[in-house]
Amino acid sequence: MKQIAEIFSQGEEIVCGQTVDSNAAWLSQQLVELGFTLKRHTAVGDNLEDLIALFTEIAERADCCICTGGLGPTSDDLTAEAVSIASGQPLVFDAQAFADIEQYYARRNRVMPEANRKQAMLPQSALRIDNAYGTAPGFALQFKRCWFVFLPGVPSEMKSMFTSLVRPQLLQSFDLQPECLVSLRSIGIGESAIQQCLADFDLPDGVQLGFRAAPDEVQTKLLFSSGFPEQEKHGCVTAVADRIGDYVFAIDGLNEAQGDLLEVVADEMSKKHYTLALLETASQGQLAAKCLGCDWLRRVEVNLDWGRNTGADQAGAGDLQPIAKVWAEQLKAREQTDFALVQLYSGSAADYRDKDKAIVLYNALATPGGVVSTQLNAHGPLKHKQNQAALLALDLLRRYLQDKCL
Amino acid sequence: MKQIAEIFSQGEEIVCGQTVDSNAAWLSQQLVELGFTLKRHTAVGDNLEDLIALFTEIAERADCCICTGGLGPTSDDLTAEAVSIASGQPLVFDAQAFADIEQYYARRNRVMPEANRKQAMLPQSALRIDNAYGTAPGFALQFKRCWFVFLPGVPSEMKSMFTSLVRPQLLQSFDLQPECLVSLRSIGIGESAIQQCLADFDLPDGVQLGFRAAPDEVQTKLLFSSGFPEQEKHGCVTAVADRIGDYVFAIDGLNEAQGDLLEVVADEMSKKHYTLALLETASQGQLAAKCLGCDWLRRVEVNLDWGRNTGADQAGAGDLQPIAKVWAEQLKAREQTDFALVQLYSGSAADYRDKDKAIVLYNALATPGGVVSTQLNAHGPLKHKQNQAALLALDLLRRYLQDKCL
Repeated sequence: MKQIAEIFSQGEEIVCGQTVDSNAAWLSQQLVELGFTLKRHTAVGDNLEDLIALFTEIAERADCCICTGGLGPTSDDLTAEAVSIASGQPLVFDAQAFADIEQYYARRNRVMPEANRKQAMLPQSALRIDNAYGTAPGFALQFKRCWFVFLPGVPSEMKSMFTSLVRPQLLQSFDLQPECLVSLRSIGIGESAIQQCLADFDLPDGVQLGFRAAPDEVQTKLLFSSGFPEQEKHGCVTAVADRIGDYVFAIDGLNEAQGDLLEVVADEMSKKHYTLALLETASQGQLAAKCLGCDWLRRVEVNLDWGRNTGADQAGAGDLQPIAKVWAEQLKAREQTDFALVQLYSGSAADYRDKDKAIVLYNALATPGGVVSTQLNAHGPLKHKQNQAALLALDLLRRYLQDKCL
Repeated sequence: MKQIAEIFSQGEEIVCGQTVDSNAAWLSQQLVELGFTLKRHTAVGDNLEDLIALFTEIAERADCCICTGGLGPTSDDLTAEAVSIASGQPLVFDAQAFADIEQYYARRNRVMPEANRKQAMLPQSALRIDNAYGTAPGFALQFKRCWFVFLPGVPSEMKSMFTSLVRPQLLQSFDLQPECLVSLRSIGIGESAIQQCLADFDLPDGVQLGFRAAPDEVQTKLLFSSGFPEQEKHGCVTAVADRIGDYVFAIDGLNEAQGDLLEVVADEMSKKHYTLALLETASQGQLAAKCLGCDWLRRVEVNLDWGRNTGADQAGAGDLQPIAKVWAEQLKAREQTDFALVQLYSGSAADYRDKDKAIVLYNALATPGGVVSTQLNAHGPLKHKQNQAALLALDLLRRYLQDKCL
């Protein structure tokens, strides 16, 4: 029998829409991977009655609830008080929590405001959850059926407390069967095309298939049930990766995380002490901007004229691939780098702006062993085309480094 | 008496955390501005029992509920069925909805899959809400106390349907007193510094003050109650803007929206047919990338060596301002543009990477009437510093164009 979990978020800024509640999504993913069944998210404002009513409701129907927000020092932070009233437990002064808050201020050479004393008052049976990054300690307690965990709403504090303290505790107190999530990260292929690649693939029992389209990639997600045989898992992942093909640039969750497209490229470039020169047109500096902090990028040129006076408009599409190749070789020779990447495109300024029109990208990569190239379309609104242009150029380098260029 | 509203989101991808529910925040903001009191957000997965229970609960306690998701053609889209069961109304075939769905496919030269027929089945008393952008029509109906509005979960479809059809309908059916939100958009000053500027300012009755720190700006929000005198409103906004000072680059909601920093700059540059040449160091192409589609940007140079071999490390901070100024004049002369913007910085590569260390940005702008400059710090993680560097350089141009350079 799977354990039922809920997420509860507190704060006027969430209910009134000033803040998008990304904590709820993050926590849900964590709980799903731990093996909980997620049933509900709820958010309410800083209202004592609403909070009491909701804690009481959730206490009856869930086995675990992670709550964020409402732990601050100000008068609208009501969580501890609401829990105390709902569960009939008095608030008790926690000397250790108080000392930690005092220390937090002392380390910053500041005097602790009197209001922060309130954050050391916890419900009697509460287990304190230390906060190494802020003043608000979290806490956890059993109330009827439900194990409630209260964490601050600041995402960085919440995430580090969950990962280092709450997660291990949940694994200990609940009889969980953690699932294993493997993500195949791909670029240059859409979700529906991936679905088609996998249409005739028989997914073994105990594996759930899902997709997630992010701005920079599409993830194919395989959720393996607890106890799924390790070897069969590897086999299944390999089979799926083979069907999707060279679009897959990284597989996370099988051995170690491999990271995003730039991380995969940067890893190879650094390991082999390679260097790169870059000419951007369609992405107009965005690829260089993405490569901030990458020492292997040695030279960047942004050609604004390409889309305006020359090139994109006038040239017949057939002419651009050879031009890109020649320019890449010239750039490599001039800059004395291991690689030179040149991005050109065809399509008018009007096409670029029109979300219903595509532009054609011509990428050429001069390498120590000759020039490789790709010709690909970019679709959608202006900013989406720009981002695709940056990523698809970078992906040509990735393909070469992973030995996946034809 | 204010009307109580809730937001309800349906979908496994939300409850399991694969999708962050940004629809809920957007809809909440819209409803707050219309004059509703927002009380709760709820999200559940595609489970018929849960849906029925929640519709029944909400029907008792809210005056209006906007629901998203669950309107698709597949078997896990259960909204209409759940509403039908909860409210005791049969589902009825809507010929117009069906014709619209058929047309949607016909326009794309595709055959309508049989599954889509289901989307034309609406609860008997439902008011259909046409969807110009997708196959799923929305609908609305009264169930007990609550006016339920059902919209698709795809954000672009949901937003356009809400704005063009739902909003006017709500204004008609509810006795609302829409509040008026004025946002003062600023850059280069933090939230707490703005609070300090306004510490001794007496906010008139009927105005609520709030802040929102976005990645590219800080917004100071003044929410004026319904019926607040127009002239007094202008006076209050002007007084607040004066206290914050030249950091304010735009005021939205008073007359017309003025837009973000780039829009404000682009507007002035285009109107006056000005041109710009740009040299980036710290932002490494990010400012050029932001200016995609701006014809007034004529030349971009990205200097990667500045942070590595020359400049940033070696130069004493005092020497950089004059260098930036000379380079700006040279760039302007060379490129024959109206303006040339040069960005330099001091701070080692290690400082740049270290989220606890700052780098100092030196921006110089050569103008038709001489050179102006700024010296500012950028803090935080790598990507945050880069974005600040891009924005603060652009802001120097904004200040000149708005006649706010000292």
